[in-house]
Amino acid sequence: MRLEEILERALRLVKPSEDEEARLKIVADKAIQLAEDEGSKLKGMIRVSLEGSAAKNTWIRGRAEADIFIHFDPSIPRDEMEKMIIDLGFKVIERLGGEPRLMYADHPYVEGLINGVTVDLVACYEVEPPNWISATDRTPYHTKYVLEKLEPGQEDEVRLLKGFMLGCGVYGAEIKVKGFSGYLTELLVINYGDFMNVIESASRWKPPIVIDPEKHYRSIKEVVEMFHDQPLIMIDPVDRGRNAAAAVSRTRLSEFIIASKLFLRNPSIKLFMISERRPKIRVFRRLSKDRDFLHIILRLMREKPPDVIWGELKRSEEGVKRALRRLGFEVYQSSSWTDESKLAIMLFELNSLNLPRYMLHQGPPAHLENSIDFIEKWLGEAIGPWIYEDRLYVLRRRDEVRAVRLLRDELSRGRVSIAKGLSKEFSKAVIGGGIERLIKLGRKRGDILRFIEDFLDARPRFLWME
Amino acid sequence: MRLEEILERALRLVKPSEDEEARLKIVADKAIQLAEDEGSKLKGMIRVSLEGSAAKNTWIRGRAEADIFIHFDPSIPRDEMEKMIIDLGFKVIERLGGEPRLMYADHPYVEGLINGVTVDLVACYEVEPPNWISATDRTPYHTKYVLEKLEPGQEDEVRLLKGFMLGCGVYGAEIKVKGFSGYLTELLVINYGDFMNVIESASRWKPPIVIDPEKHYRSIKEVVEMFHDQPLIMIDPVDRGRNAAAAVSRTRLSEFIIASKLFLRNPSIKLFMISERRPKIRVFRRLSKDRDFLHIILRLMREKPPDVIWGELKRSEEGVKRALRRLGFEVYQSSSWTDESKLAIMLFELNSLNLPRYMLHQGPPAHLENSIDFIEKWLGEAIGPWIYEDRLYVLRRRDEVRAVRLLRDELSRGRVSIAKGLSKEFSKAVIGGGIERLIKLGRKRGDILRFIEDFLDARPRFLWME
Repeated sequence: MRLEEILERALRLVKPSEDEEARLKIVADKAIQLAEDEGSKLKGMIRVSLEGSAAKNTWIRGRAEADIFIHFDPSIPRDEMEKMIIDLGFKVIERLGGEPRLMYADHPYVEGLINGVTVDLVACYEVEPPNWISATDRTPYHTKYVLEKLEPGQEDEVRLLKGFMLGCGVYGAEIKVKGFSGYLTELLVINYGDFMNVIESASRWKPPIVIDPEKHYRSIKEVVEMFHDQPLIMIDPVDRGRNAAAAVSRTRLSEFIIASKLFLRNPSIKLFMISERRPKIRVFRRLSKDRDFLHIILRLMREKPPDVIWGELKRSEEGVKRALRRLGFEVYQSSSWTDESKLAIMLFELNSLNLPRYMLHQGPPAHLENSIDFIEKWLGEAIGPWIYEDRLYVLRRRDEVRAVRLLRDELSRGRVSIAKGLSKEFSKAVIGGGIERLIKLGRKRGDILRFIEDFLDARPRFLWME
Repeated sequence: MRLEEILERALRLVKPSEDEEARLKIVADKAIQLAEDEGSKLKGMIRVSLEGSAAKNTWIRGRAEADIFIHFDPSIPRDEMEKMIIDLGFKVIERLGGEPRLMYADHPYVEGLINGVTVDLVACYEVEPPNWISATDRTPYHTKYVLEKLEPGQEDEVRLLKGFMLGCGVYGAEIKVKGFSGYLTELLVINYGDFMNVIESASRWKPPIVIDPEKHYRSIKEVVEMFHDQPLIMIDPVDRGRNAAAAVSRTRLSEFIIASKLFLRNPSIKLFMISERRPKIRVFRRLSKDRDFLHIILRLMREKPPDVIWGELKRSEEGVKRALRRLGFEVYQSSSWTDESKLAIMLFELNSLNLPRYMLHQGPPAHLENSIDFIEKWLGEAIGPWIYEDRLYVLRRRDEVRAVRLLRDELSRGRVSIAKGLSKEFSKAVIGGGIERLIKLGRKRGDILRFIEDFLDARPRFLWME
């Protein structure tokens, strides 16, 4: 297939249908009307606006979202505003005929699904930059900036980029993904002109990458120092102190770079498609042969916003990984999964589920005075000590060599850095070797089986083979 | 026991008996007489002298040695001189009633055991320093220097030091030991005054140690630069270009330092005694439990001087160790043994006799152009590739994971750095795991069993416990 043809077909995949577009318009208009009606009764409510991809016409097929923003006067205290938006949100969604759900990002908002359209009711303060009070205050300025800068036709370029990133698994700023936000895709298209230019540029990116569309800084060096250690830096045009790409992890960025290189070398419609595999247990058996896994199953005890759960889970995964390495294991890879409500799983691939019974323990150089203390400490308690070149050595016998037991012990002694919010869950965690128990758990749940298969396969989506 | 008492008892252990002394005198005198008679018939023979510990009266009980040096004119070619000394040596030993044996150090000499006295017939050139032609030319000057410098009574201090070093396993400059020569012990006593002062100084040594008795150099810095990387530097009083301690390995030096510290902290007669253990196979079973060993058995095919055999063996041991590490094993310790004629054994202790079936293989950073080559190379051939932070990774399956097979394979491909002189032996080597085969081999040979026990115990002699 020629590139033009691929992009045409990709656009058909990502561009909303006329019907879908009409539905979004009707729902959004109605939601705004209701929000204005309800809002007019509230103290300090200034105005209602449509924000996000619907306002910018950059939303993609199957992802119709109406972000309704209620603008409040800065004099209203935060907790009052939060109460008001929850109350208003519930009323609006109910009057639209939907089922309201309380959500949290930086602060609470209310969501409902109306006729295939996700409606979010969000509060913000009506302020001038850079006098931000809450994180959502920037959003109307983002909308304004994109509407000003995006030329006719560029909306579809944004859609292609979103579709490509979705297909490659790097789209979404939520903690679960740590990928590219919608706003970031728009800024990339504004900066590079069109989809293909973004891809061509990304294929040559070498982190740290600095993009400063409004030239808020005089030099790249200044930016790199300011946003130290961040691999992708997109200076927010409406806020010079903010990196609009701060959520993008190194891993997602690298995946996007690689996917861009691959697409240029071998353009394919597949990179725009989200094909879910059908997990097959006999494939698991083949893939897991001669490999060593350790799993942790957590029963979640409290409801929390997804970003909070995923954040705690990933921080804890890192902590367990560090603990396993400290214990002497090699951790080849690790991953976490959660249904975001009741259950969470962590999976680790190790070089082995058992350590050698003996470990080499290096003592001080012979010439130091404490060399004799080392001998007195270990003589009769270990194999050795012996002297090799300048140093003393012993072989220490390990009482316990099994990864599962060693990790359990470290956890019970509080020596593993896990997220505080999961400490109760960890105290009752199921820790085991292999993946049989997970497969059993997954017999009723395709998403768990897919998580296991993704882990065993260990390739990003865009490298799956037929 | 008080220190004085210990030293008195130690001296009784190391000082020759009157009877032994008389025997040495008789044998040495007779040997010199015979050598002079035989030597007078030879072209270029200048004189005969007694050298070594007998000449200096520093020899120790049970080690009576008469080193008879035949001095030749520098005009005699080396090969002629060698022929003559072999011929003369054989005649002298035979006429003494002994069985002559041809030996090699730097050049050939002849040895025989006469009435408990080892008689060596050695050739040297009669030259003035520093016009050395062969390595033995310095010996008469060493004897002269020591006789001049050693005060009456210091001979016994040398004997104590030799006895201590023998007891601690650091005495002997031969390649098998890589320890302290007799001449070096004499220089140490001349330098530090007495045995206890040597021990006290050594207990505070921090390599590199520089001793320059005749102040041949102006600064320590100059010496350290000249004898780069040598841990103990004793400038030979008769040759400023030579380190009289060049044979001392780091390990033996460290052992001597540690033994000195231990003796000062807890003086004990045990450190002067060579107690051989009686190896017990049930002790082996206990000591070797849960440990992993790899052995190599070599049938030696050619007669060679011990220093040559030990040199080849130790170099090959290092080469095998490096190969095992390159293959992914941890080598905790290694050791070699040989009967110096027919058989040699190498023993390695590993973290495991098997590698994990899969290994983590790190690819290039995502931003490099060859990241795509890495993907194309490994996709479908390995688990992955996946991206973590900046880099690509795959899990590679190993076809072979057994240390014994992997090492055999490396050897057969010529990828192991072994001494050239052992290449034939290695091509027919027996390589195996565990120590059972060695125990079997040792049933007829106590020295092999002692080697195995020393390896399992992994302590220098002076740390053995009751």
